[in-house]
Amino acid sequence: MSEKRKGNAVIGQSGGPTMVINQSLVGVIQEVQKHAHIERLLGARHGVRGIIDNDFIDIKNTPAELAERIALTPSAALGSTRDKPDHAYCEKIFKSFEKNNVRYFFYIGGNDSCDTARSVHDHTPGYGSAARFVAMAMIGDDYDNKSLPGIKIDVIMGRHAGFLTAASVLARKYDNDGPHLIYVPEAPLSMEKFIGDVDRVYSKLGRCLIAVSEGVSAPDGKAWAEKMSEHLEKDAHGNLQLSGTGALGDFFAEQIKSKLTPPGGKKLRVRADTFGYLQRSYPMVSEVDAREGRLVGQVAVKYSADPAVTEGSIAMRRVAGSEYKIETFLTPLSTVARETKHLDPSYIVNGNDISDAFKAYVRPLVGPLPVVGSFAEMK
Amino acid sequence: MSEKRKGNAVIGQSGGPTMVINQSLVGVIQEVQKHAHIERLLGARHGVRGIIDNDFIDIKNTPAELAERIALTPSAALGSTRDKPDHAYCEKIFKSFEKNNVRYFFYIGGNDSCDTARSVHDHTPGYGSAARFVAMAMIGDDYDNKSLPGIKIDVIMGRHAGFLTAASVLARKYDNDGPHLIYVPEAPLSMEKFIGDVDRVYSKLGRCLIAVSEGVSAPDGKAWAEKMSEHLEKDAHGNLQLSGTGALGDFFAEQIKSKLTPPGGKKLRVRADTFGYLQRSYPMVSEVDAREGRLVGQVAVKYSADPAVTEGSIAMRRVAGSEYKIETFLTPLSTVARETKHLDPSYIVNGNDISDAFKAYVRPLVGPLPVVGSFAEMK
Repeated sequence: MSEKRKGNAVIGQSGGPTMVINQSLVGVIQEVQKHAHIERLLGARHGVRGIIDNDFIDIKNTPAELAERIALTPSAALGSTRDKPDHAYCEKIFKSFEKNNVRYFFYIGGNDSCDTARSVHDHTPGYGSAARFVAMAMIGDDYDNKSLPGIKIDVIMGRHAGFLTAASVLARKYDNDGPHLIYVPEAPLSMEKFIGDVDRVYSKLGRCLIAVSEGVSAPDGKAWAEKMSEHLEKDAHGNLQLSGTGALGDFFAEQIKSKLTPPGGKKLRVRADTFGYLQRSYPMVSEVDAREGRLVGQVAVKYSADPAVTEGSIAMRRVAGSEYKIETFLTPLSTVARETKHLDPSYIVNGNDISDAFKAYVRPLVGPLPVVGSFAEMK
Repeated sequence: MSEKRKGNAVIGQSGGPTMVINQSLVGVIQEVQKHAHIERLLGARHGVRGIIDNDFIDIKNTPAELAERIALTPSAALGSTRDKPDHAYCEKIFKSFEKNNVRYFFYIGGNDSCDTARSVHDHTPGYGSAARFVAMAMIGDDYDNKSLPGIKIDVIMGRHAGFLTAASVLARKYDNDGPHLIYVPEAPLSMEKFIGDVDRVYSKLGRCLIAVSEGVSAPDGKAWAEKMSEHLEKDAHGNLQLSGTGALGDFFAEQIKSKLTPPGGKKLRVRADTFGYLQRSYPMVSEVDAREGRLVGQVAVKYSADPAVTEGSIAMRRVAGSEYKIETFLTPLSTVARETKHLDPSYIVNGNDISDAFKAYVRPLVGPLPVVGSFAEMK
């Protein structure tokens, strides 16, 4: 095997940051320290933006103790960006690479939303930790709702795919535990069905906990967030601004209040929370997710040392068997571009629930959940 | 010492539940198991409501393993209530006690909001865990905001007192860390000051992280949540509905967007999250808080065995010294009724920040926070 030509490497982070995007960064740093083909490791501040602005930090010699702390720190330690390079932007990137003798380029994230796994992946790093937050939050909120019964709506990240919202199903332990209704973008939802579902659950249990994706859409294909208001912002990718506002949750709460008449004319207690940025930044990880995040960074550097490899993305797939195990592989960049992986339709039950098969899929990614107890066990 | 007359005890939970309200419940159960004066321990479902509905579970013999799981379970295991008994309601309670041979009554919570410590307390159980959630969430959100800079508003529980919002100050480690602005109900806030503050921070740092209490008020004394809208709900205590809606955060975000013009006419990235019910129900505790929650339950039962004691509330005060230590004491119910403890004015700096003295006060209640790292340390 011939040796790779020596040169510098650039590393950047982009897109919506996650709790393990720094694990991958630290995986790269640690592996680069073992390899001779990469002389300097230039951390680009705020992704491609740092490359064209020549805003780099040399991080090859990051001390091990600091690297481990950075690995545990939320969000992107180099800064992220939403810039989407056009042709002229790319020209500037290549000029910067030339000027800085850059022969290797590692880019972490790039995926524009933490809620989707590209079709070639079993899942992406970051998903497990965000799913863990959602499952934990939903456990807490379900007990809160049992304690002071009412109708509660929790709006969860996910523009086009319901992977995060579906993870809320992990909160159920006892009969009649919430979430009682789970709505994902893959299953269009009419207002009639929504109100009918809530009415049925509330009439039976005297309470109702609802998990709904921010990107849930009406039968006409339009997102409810869009239908609800003409004033929502769009970011540079043309995505609606869905996180960082409580409007969708409040809209659904108002719909329930105005369309549902509780028995006896008693006033309904309806509340909505939007989990927001906490889902990707709350400083607590799924251990499996952290390990995998580190691993893909290490593997990327190993591939870069192989003269036969010129480009590719590190992906993960599950190894068949009863124990959870993944393997990494290199896949051409062309296979990962711009496709959102959707929930398999078989995971969605009645347009308002998630199957046990999905629960089995997601459980190992999230790690152990808090042990809970109820006096119901004494009956 | 003469012996207390034997009889049954009722225990209930009420008000906004916390992460440690079950610790106190389990403290009572465990202690009752050691005492002969309490024959049956009747858990009233949903507080006083369960008493008048005769809805009890006998929980004296809760198995130890189940009790420990319940102690770790969020919210009120017996169910909570917002009922505020009037004279007729109280008559029914006494009738129920008579019928059930109830000689002892333990009531946990009763405090209508988890954000306030009664004036006689150093702090109440539940506060440390909620403050821990706020500090953790703010650490995560600050790194998210460093990574993708913009203006971010986080709305935190606290109708009349800023203890929870003030705990966000614990998120700061490095220079220029957020939250950069902290607004509490004790310091009235004009829209001019708010916009001016945000402008100053954003001009200097290119980003701004804001922690604001849901109950923050304008100089005329009216809460911004009230001024903002005539349509907010009120609960049975006459409190405005502030949690369970994202409206206040969205209002502040809109104010910034409409009143602040960034240099170069670039569009401002302004987002708002409302931490909502997660603050009191996210299943993660401050260990100190959990220990103290358990302790006050145990102590209450011990006092109930003392023939000299007829009524009282268990309160906590700090023991002077450099190490954090509390002691419990019995205080007459009349000293704890209906007073909100406010932040000491000396803790509030310039109407937009919190002092180091408060940081020193709150740190031991919250426990160790995540270790973080930044490449800034390499400079």
